[in-house]
Amino acid sequence: MALPIETFFLSPNHQGTLQSQVQQMIAHGILSGRFGTGEKLPSTRKLAAHLGISRITVTLAYTELVASDYLTARGRSGYYVSDNAPVPPVYQPQPMAAESVDWTRAIGQRFSGGRTLSKPKDWARFRYAFIYGQTDPQLFDHANWRQCALQALGQRDFSALTADYYDRDDPQLIEFIQRNTLPRRGISANADQILITMGAQNALWLTAQVLLTQRRTAAFEDPCYPALREILTQSRCHMAPVRVDQKGLPPDAIPPQVDVIFATPSHQCPTTSTMPMERRQDLLDRARALDALVIEDDYEFEMSFLERPSPALKSMDVDGRVIYVGSFSKSLFPGLRLGFLVGSEPFIREARALRASVLRHPPGHIQRTAAYFLSMGHYDAQIRKMGAALHRRRTAMQAAIDAHGLEIAGLGGFGGSSFWMRAPAHKDARQLALDLQEASVLIEPGNAFFSGQDTPRNYYRLGYSSIQSDRITEGIARIAKAVES
Amino acid sequence: MALPIETFFLSPNHQGTLQSQVQQMIAHGILSGRFGTGEKLPSTRKLAAHLGISRITVTLAYTELVASDYLTARGRSGYYVSDNAPVPPVYQPQPMAAESVDWTRAIGQRFSGGRTLSKPKDWARFRYAFIYGQTDPQLFDHANWRQCALQALGQRDFSALTADYYDRDDPQLIEFIQRNTLPRRGISANADQILITMGAQNALWLTAQVLLTQRRTAAFEDPCYPALREILTQSRCHMAPVRVDQKGLPPDAIPPQVDVIFATPSHQCPTTSTMPMERRQDLLDRARALDALVIEDDYEFEMSFLERPSPALKSMDVDGRVIYVGSFSKSLFPGLRLGFLVGSEPFIREARALRASVLRHPPGHIQRTAAYFLSMGHYDAQIRKMGAALHRRRTAMQAAIDAHGLEIAGLGGFGGSSFWMRAPAHKDARQLALDLQEASVLIEPGNAFFSGQDTPRNYYRLGYSSIQSDRITEGIARIAKAVES
Repeated sequence: MALPIETFFLSPNHQGTLQSQVQQMIAHGILSGRFGTGEKLPSTRKLAAHLGISRITVTLAYTELVASDYLTARGRSGYYVSDNAPVPPVYQPQPMAAESVDWTRAIGQRFSGGRTLSKPKDWARFRYAFIYGQTDPQLFDHANWRQCALQALGQRDFSALTADYYDRDDPQLIEFIQRNTLPRRGISANADQILITMGAQNALWLTAQVLLTQRRTAAFEDPCYPALREILTQSRCHMAPVRVDQKGLPPDAIPPQVDVIFATPSHQCPTTSTMPMERRQDLLDRARALDALVIEDDYEFEMSFLERPSPALKSMDVDGRVIYVGSFSKSLFPGLRLGFLVGSEPFIREARALRASVLRHPPGHIQRTAAYFLSMGHYDAQIRKMGAALHRRRTAMQAAIDAHGLEIAGLGGFGGSSFWMRAPAHKDARQLALDLQEASVLIEPGNAFFSGQDTPRNYYRLGYSSIQSDRITEGIARIAKAVES
Repeated sequence: MALPIETFFLSPNHQGTLQSQVQQMIAHGILSGRFGTGEKLPSTRKLAAHLGISRITVTLAYTELVASDYLTARGRSGYYVSDNAPVPPVYQPQPMAAESVDWTRAIGQRFSGGRTLSKPKDWARFRYAFIYGQTDPQLFDHANWRQCALQALGQRDFSALTADYYDRDDPQLIEFIQRNTLPRRGISANADQILITMGAQNALWLTAQVLLTQRRTAAFEDPCYPALREILTQSRCHMAPVRVDQKGLPPDAIPPQVDVIFATPSHQCPTTSTMPMERRQDLLDRARALDALVIEDDYEFEMSFLERPSPALKSMDVDGRVIYVGSFSKSLFPGLRLGFLVGSEPFIREARALRASVLRHPPGHIQRTAAYFLSMGHYDAQIRKMGAALHRRRTAMQAAIDAHGLEIAGLGGFGGSSFWMRAPAHKDARQLALDLQEASVLIEPGNAFFSGQDTPRNYYRLGYSSIQSDRITEGIARIAKAVES
C-alpha cells in the first residue's frame, strides 16, 4: 500500500535543516504506528514537489533512513517502510481516577517558595533589556566553541564523551585549571584539591551541605545572591546576615559564633564593590581568630577591565582556611553549568562523595569541550573581547546615568557587568520594573537580594551584559522618566 | 626580538589536530608570559620545517591566531605577538605554611566512605571485561549523535545552548518524552509532571530528599543498586531492606510502617528478574493499603529483547502513588548524565525547586542534542541494534556458562545486559575477581549489592554490554577455571 502524499507536511516551527525535518517526519510516522511495515513511500520527485523543497534533500533523507533501517530501497520500484523498522509497543494510558495521595503529608521536606529573582523567560524580546548574566550572541565566540565541541565529539575523545567517570572528572580540564587558571589568581592546588561542579551554584550548594548543620552558623553578605540565601536556608543552619558597605563585607561586623563565612571579595554581588587588600587581610585574620572557614565566590573576576584584578583571597590563605569557588558561567555562558571548587583535601573528598551521590559527575563532553576552548586560548581572547565591549557599554551607561541624574549605589571600580542603583526612598522598584516593562525596558528590582522581612525596596540592578551600546542612552532615558514620574 | 625556533616543539601525547596543537602551543606561550608583546614568530616555512609538518598547517594556525588577536601580520615581514594579545596577571602563590584547620571538626556532614562498586578505571584494557553499564563503541551510534550535537550547536539553537533556564528544562526534550517516550510505557503526563535530571542517580537522589526525613521509613530491595542504598543512608531515614525472590520484590514482605518503596520491576538490579503482572498489581495494592509511595526505577526496559516489556507500574497507577524514574544512560551512554522523573505535580514542584538550588538545570546543549537524537528516530534505531547485539552475546554467554556448569542465580527472562551468578558457598567473589584480573578477566563481585554487615560473598555479576561476542567463550572458560580452583 502506498502512503498518501497528504500525510506529509512540514511544520513552520521546526528547528533544524529541511533534510532533518523530512527524516524526522518519516521516522515519527513509523514509530507512532501510522506508517506500517511494507508500505510504500512517495517517490523522491513527488514528495519534493509536494513539500516545495529540492529533490536532493528528499533523496538524502531517504538514504539516511535506509542506513538506519527505517526504510528499504527496492531497486527502481522505490522506498518502503522496512520490515526491520523499530516498532515500539504502545499502551493505552490508564485514566487517572483521582489523586488519592495526600501530598501535604507525603512530602517530607519542602524546597519551593523561596524568594528568588524573577526574570521574564522572554527577556530577549525587550528592546532595552538591562538584564544580568545571560549571554550576548554578539560577544560569545560561538564559532570556536562549536569547533571545540566538534573536536570533543571525535573518535579520539569517545571515552571522554561516553564514559561513566563515577566520582572523578576530565583529567584534561583539571590539569588546565590547575596549571593555568589558578596560577593567574595566585592559587596553587593539586588535582585532589579541585572538584568540577555544575556551575558556581552547585559549588556553593555542595559546600553548604558539607560544612553546615543545624548547629552551625553561616555569615553571609547582605545584600547577596538570593540563591545563596536559599541554599543556606535549606541547610537549616543559623544564619547571620552581615550588611556590606562600600568596601564589601566588614570583618569586624562578623559575629563571634560564626563557623563559615560566605564572601564575594572580587565583585560583591549585587553592590559590585571590590574588597581592598587591607580588608582582605583583616577578613582572613578575623576568620583565623574565630576559627571559621571562608568561602570565596570569585564569580566575575575576569571582567576587571578598569583595573587589574586583585589576587584572590585564597592566594593569601596560608592555613587552608579559604575554599575557592570559580565559574565559567559568566565568561562563557550560564547554560554550560560548569564551575569548580578548590579547597583542602579533606573538604574536597567529602564534596566529591556528595556530588557522586547527587549526580555522579558533570557530563564528560561539556568538560572536554571547555578544556579545549581554554587550552586553545579562545577563552582568553573571548574575555578580552568581552571586557572591551563591556567597557564601552559601561562608559555609555555612566554618561547616560549622569546626564539623567540617576543615583548609583554601587560603582564597581574594577569593571563587572552591572550597576547597583538606588531610586528615591518612596519608590518601590518592583512596581518600577513592571511599569518599565510596558516601555519595553527590563530592570531587576533589588529587594530579593536583601535578607529579612522588611527589606529596602528602592534598589535595582542594571545589567549591561546583554544590551547593545546604541540602545543604552534611550533605555536609561526611559528609566529616568519612570523614576521621576 | 625573534623567538628562537627551539622554543617550539610538538608533544607526542597531544590530542587533536596538528593545527590545533600549533595554535595551542603559541597561545600558551603568550598566556604564560614566555612570548612577549612585539616578539617575532618564526616564518611559516621555518617553523614547518622545524616541526616536520606541512607549511599550510602552520599558515592556517597563524591565521587563526591573527583572527583572535594573539598575533599580528606585518605584510611581508612576518608574524608578531600582538600588542592586544591577552596578558593575564600572574601572581606568585603563597607557600602553604601548614594546614591549621581542624577538618575533623570543620566538616559538618560526612559523605565519603560508603560501600560502592569498585570498577577499575582502566577496564577497557582487560581482554575479557564482563563489565556493566559502560558504552560499547561498536554499538553506540556515534556518527548520528555527533550530527545531532552539531545541529544543537547551530545558530538557531543558540539560546538552547547558552541560556540560563533557571528551574526549567528544554521544552523540545520535555515534549518528546511526553508525546513519545512515556506513551510507550503506558504513561500519560503533562509537562509539569516531568523533570529532567542528571541521570537516574540524580532522579533517585532528588526523590529521597523530597520524600524522606529522619522520621520516615524507606523499603528497598535487597540486593539493590548500591548507590541507592548510599542515597538512603545519607537521607538518614529508617531503612527497611526487603529480600527479593525470583519475581522481584515480594509485596507481603514490605513492613507495615513504610512510607516510600523503591523498586525495579522491569529488571531487578542486580538479579535481573522481571516482576510478573499479578505481583505488580499486588505491589500497588500493598502500597495503597500502607498509604505508601512507590518509586519505580525503570532503568533498562529498552533492553527487553527476549520478551516485549511489560507496561510500567506507573501505567497501572490510578491514584498518583507511583513516581517513575527514566534514564538514557544505559541506552545512550552514562557520560551523558540524562534521565527524568515523572510524578504528581506537588512532588515535581518540590523536586524542581531542589534541583534549581543544587544545580539549576542539566546543560541545555545536552538536552537539545538528546531531543534531536530521539525525535530523528536515531534512538529507536540504536535500541534495536543494541538489542540484537546483546541477544547474540547473551546466547553465547548462556551456552558457555552451561558448558562449564557455572550457576546462574538470576536469569533475566526479558533480556538485559548482565547475568547474576552464584559461586560455590565457600568462594569469596572479591578474591575471585582479583585472581581473574591476573588473567585479564573483569567480573563484578556481588557483595556490595547486599544490605547489612554479614552479606553473602559468593555472588557476582557478569555484564555483557561491553564485551565482544568472540571473546565470551574464552572469558567464561577462564572464570570457570578460577571458580573450580
